[in-house]
Amino acid sequence: MSDVAAPVAALVEELSKLPGVGVKTAQRLTFFILRSPNDQARRLAEAILRVKESIIYCSRCYNITETDPCPICSNPGRDQDSICVVEEPLDVLALEKTGVYKGLYHVLHGALSPLNGVGRKDIRIDELLKRLSAGNVREVILATNPGFEGDYTAGVIKDDIKSGIAAPLRVTTLARGLPLGSDLEYADEGTLSRALEGRREI
Amino acid sequence: MSDVAAPVAALVEELSKLPGVGVKTAQRLTFFILRSPNDQARRLAEAILRVKESIIYCSRCYNITETDPCPICSNPGRDQDSICVVEEPLDVLALEKTGVYKGLYHVLHGALSPLNGVGRKDIRIDELLKRLSAGNVREVILATNPGFEGDYTAGVIKDDIKSGIAAPLRVTTLARGLPLGSDLEYADEGTLSRALEGRREI
Repeated sequence: MSDVAAPVAALVEELSKLPGVGVKTAQRLTFFILRSPNDQARRLAEAILRVKESIIYCSRCYNITETDPCPICSNPGRDQDSICVVEEPLDVLALEKTGVYKGLYHVLHGALSPLNGVGRKDIRIDELLKRLSAGNVREVILATNPGFEGDYTAGVIKDDIKSGIAAPLRVTTLARGLPLGSDLEYADEGTLSRALEGRREI
Repeated sequence: MSDVAAPVAALVEELSKLPGVGVKTAQRLTFFILRSPNDQARRLAEAILRVKESIIYCSRCYNITETDPCPICSNPGRDQDSICVVEEPLDVLALEKTGVYKGLYHVLHGALSPLNGVGRKDIRIDELLKRLSAGNVREVILATNPGFEGDYTAGVIKDDIKSGIAAPLRVTTLARGLPLGSDLEYADEGTLSRALEGRREI
């Protein structure tokens, strides 16, 4: 890259720090940006700066927001007695898109992972227990990702709630089973076992 | 996305304009940027702005550069009698990495594509012919991409040179054949045909 202009090399380097972006992809993106209209590139750069300047975490649910509390926590139209616990802000996005859930959220910002050294002080479990001990909540939906770390995290939180919270509290998780449009033939064993266990009369 | 903070939605939108980046990837990148240190995000934004401000096209070879003529064109140590014709600046990068080629380049900025309405006025063919008519060049290597559009472009340039340039000029293309480390069993027909046609005595 000796004869490559320094600003090009710099942009390739910065882009290749993004997740899932290798050097080849970073080069392609760099040349795309080089060729794109000036104001499109400027809008991208400004969007990056603005997101860092204006986004904070909600002091109640820890979702990302511009205002504290966030629009969901401060919306009186939402069920105040239900909290859905998710790993990441992206999960809130996905659930909101369904339009099915009308309660509040709690974003853990990760899942417990003893192998990777992620313990309970690294994610927002204690903040959740504190919210629950206030006593207004009647259902906690543990919507961590299906898989080892997510399931383990949900288990730990369930145990914490059962042993520490006096109020009568329903603790649920999302249903496991075959995804819509999937092919039984290609479903993995775990998914198929859960689908069988969770079968319903029709 | 109604309850998503506007700066987040804006960054997702700008990122999803990049090639190969869908909405899901744009969301992942956005949340990565949100979580990355402030100065890393600022470096990325600044690299985008700087590349647009400082990069120009070399008036001789049309490669990207900060100075005109570019470092390759203005390097007296390079063979001035050889021009390697490529489609994109990324191709110059790839060839330079081999360290094998010591001559000059000419970047077409595309390939002829009648189906997509890309004609000879849209890429830098006439500029190449003008360079060649100056008479100092002895070899033109047509290093367009192997494939319909690249081969067609190389054919058109070859015909133009043969009919229009008086000076004796060697016109070559890169060898076609099996890539290193590939598996004969999985090679496509076209590659295998070219490899057979181009077989060499050992």
